[in-house]
Amino acid sequence: MRPEELILVSVDDHLIEPPDLFDEHLPARFRDRAPRVVRQDDGSDVWKFNGTTIPNIGLNAVAGRPPEEYGVEPTAFDEMRPGCYDAAERIKDMNAGGVLASMNFPSFPGFSGRVFAACEDKELALAVVRAYNDWHIDEWAGSHPGRFIPMALPVLWDPDLAAEEVRRVAAKGCRSLTFTENPATLGYPSFHDPHWDPLWRALSDEGVVMSVHLGSSGQLSVTAADAPVDVMITLQPMNICQAAADLLWSRVLKEFPDIRIALSEGGTGWIPYFLDRLDRTYVMHHKWTGQDFGGRLPSEVFRQHFLTCFISDPVGVQLREQIGLENIAWECDYPHSDSSWPNAAEELGAVMAGVPDRDVNLMTYENALRWYQFDPFTHRPREQSTVGALRAEAAGHDVSVRSYDKGRFERSAGANLAELRASATA
Amino acid sequence: MRPEELILVSVDDHLIEPPDLFDEHLPARFRDRAPRVVRQDDGSDVWKFNGTTIPNIGLNAVAGRPPEEYGVEPTAFDEMRPGCYDAAERIKDMNAGGVLASMNFPSFPGFSGRVFAACEDKELALAVVRAYNDWHIDEWAGSHPGRFIPMALPVLWDPDLAAEEVRRVAAKGCRSLTFTENPATLGYPSFHDPHWDPLWRALSDEGVVMSVHLGSSGQLSVTAADAPVDVMITLQPMNICQAAADLLWSRVLKEFPDIRIALSEGGTGWIPYFLDRLDRTYVMHHKWTGQDFGGRLPSEVFRQHFLTCFISDPVGVQLREQIGLENIAWECDYPHSDSSWPNAAEELGAVMAGVPDRDVNLMTYENALRWYQFDPFTHRPREQSTVGALRAEAAGHDVSVRSYDKGRFERSAGANLAELRASATA
Repeated sequence: MRPEELILVSVDDHLIEPPDLFDEHLPARFRDRAPRVVRQDDGSDVWKFNGTTIPNIGLNAVAGRPPEEYGVEPTAFDEMRPGCYDAAERIKDMNAGGVLASMNFPSFPGFSGRVFAACEDKELALAVVRAYNDWHIDEWAGSHPGRFIPMALPVLWDPDLAAEEVRRVAAKGCRSLTFTENPATLGYPSFHDPHWDPLWRALSDEGVVMSVHLGSSGQLSVTAADAPVDVMITLQPMNICQAAADLLWSRVLKEFPDIRIALSEGGTGWIPYFLDRLDRTYVMHHKWTGQDFGGRLPSEVFRQHFLTCFISDPVGVQLREQIGLENIAWECDYPHSDSSWPNAAEELGAVMAGVPDRDVNLMTYENALRWYQFDPFTHRPREQSTVGALRAEAAGHDVSVRSYDKGRFERSAGANLAELRASATA
Repeated sequence: MRPEELILVSVDDHLIEPPDLFDEHLPARFRDRAPRVVRQDDGSDVWKFNGTTIPNIGLNAVAGRPPEEYGVEPTAFDEMRPGCYDAAERIKDMNAGGVLASMNFPSFPGFSGRVFAACEDKELALAVVRAYNDWHIDEWAGSHPGRFIPMALPVLWDPDLAAEEVRRVAAKGCRSLTFTENPATLGYPSFHDPHWDPLWRALSDEGVVMSVHLGSSGQLSVTAADAPVDVMITLQPMNICQAAADLLWSRVLKEFPDIRIALSEGGTGWIPYFLDRLDRTYVMHHKWTGQDFGGRLPSEVFRQHFLTCFISDPVGVQLREQIGLENIAWECDYPHSDSSWPNAAEELGAVMAGVPDRDVNLMTYENALRWYQFDPFTHRPREQSTVGALRAEAAGHDVSVRSYDKGRFERSAGANLAELRASATA
């Protein structure tokens, strides 16, 4: 299949929250305490909420920059492409990239909304989570039907309220909850604690996928403070195997057989090894560990419950049958530095060379649509949904590489993690 | 190739230190402070050294037990096969398993000798490390020429002394140093610190391989205290990707181009994904991270420096060309519970079905012999070194499954990690 013929649905992109996000959606009595954007003396923009400052509003939102200017930049809205924070502009960028539909993870609240959960005033925290979800579902996604797979933030501090919020957003058509890879590292009960059962029940009842993004445990794969940043970049995706193993062996899948989990930005090429390892662990050890999947192997259980995804993963494509043809989706990762936007279709096309059309379609869009119960074709005919058709609509939209550098990026060039962190909060 | 025709050299097995280890090798003035085995009131044996007690002398040394009795047992010498701690008995077990040669990691000192390094009296600590190495090289390995690839413990607390010890043991023919996956987690400078340069220089000069075993950082892959132990078992091997990435991107490989590293018990099936990820990280990010391998890709650098190994890894065998045919060795993992001893040859033969003999031989013994500069065939002709030939010599040796249970193993059945740890120190 030629790149222009592909249909691309991305299950992992990122939005940068615009400053007016809470203006319309937070009840009036909370508005003076709403999260707000403040410009700092050094020209950077930060979010302020609950007495804390969250810098790096566009952490790694480098789409359209030259690679020399990647890193933890940019730190201000005027250092980013508008497509990062403006849905109409995002649609233009998606068209230019040939991307039909996209699921957008949050930025400043953290992937699991832990910035909101940290607020001691739980009435305010709940109002903020709901306002965020309403904005995301009704405004960001709602303004462009068929283009954004809606995603909700969780109520992290209360499983009953979390369940209630899942049911509330599901009624609005949202079938994706962003959640943490590991609640234990955030100070909550682990996946092995019945604490979370109301949430699992709501996800199961409503057919909402728990999308766990790498880094959502609040812990990066950091080997040492003075390690080159390349170490962390390399290790992030595969690190999600910890969440996969933690959930696979947990009581959650056994007691909630309808629950489904997406390993977001986790890559795929390591999965066949992982499945073999799961099965060997079961065969060698279950007689003393007591694991019991009712006669099934863990690899079968994995394929029932987990969706994986890749940006460009030749080994994953090569081993797609061993992963599970129904278990692989594509992601663009716009606007982060691992994305090949606007040329992702060409990168993907090269990786898919020689793969039968049926398999390509499953991986590039059909699995994503089925897992998230999302149908863009009620809004746009399939034949107008290809990379080629979307790009034709984007004619004239400027996607040339542009330097947004205002002198800050040198801070991160060649840095190790400790230096990057210092620069990120400078 | 039929299982009986295989030649098996294992680059990862374990020995349980016998109580008399230090009797002959520690200078007389240190003997009253030598590590010693003490039988506890509950029937367990422990090592005592430097005011601390190290329980679980045979942690997971379950070879020959029924799977129902795996776990953190056994805790006494009379609960183990003598092959765990007696070299002559080990040879019988190796013959019965068809294993020509074996490299044995330490047990109670920790994989990187951190129990010895913790001793404040550094004169004593150094004497103990040297005594251990002399025992291992001269007695354990030396008593059976051509059967044990000798391995030395490091002097962890002083890079100059570490270098000196490497040169000392190399002169005795030892070409393997067990080392930690991550010195930073043990409180030492990281791999990125020039602190270790004398050690890297000695390893390079002497052609000694740094063998980093999973778990040698002192950190297990633990997701939560109440996670089922299956989670940890599943994750351990692949977790070594952290050490691989940490070293790959470090200055060590750039400044010491002759250094070689073995990822012990790390598995192989995930390596092709990992190499793609390394290369993509380089291509996408090197312009801001400043990485420079002199025009080579990280995957090429990996194949120059790293040896991988597997117990039984169908995906690794399938993808052997993508890993590097010269970069894969086999391991038995005797006497731990991941081992298939005495039937490892049959398990391996099934995984190698259809693989050309040339490739099989590289993976089952030739790579191991080349990397560790070990030649068993000066002691035993090649045609008497096959699984079939060795097993013929073991005729009559009892390898039937035997219950050693004295009522302790129930403590670990179905336990989570917190419970296992409590039982391990009970």
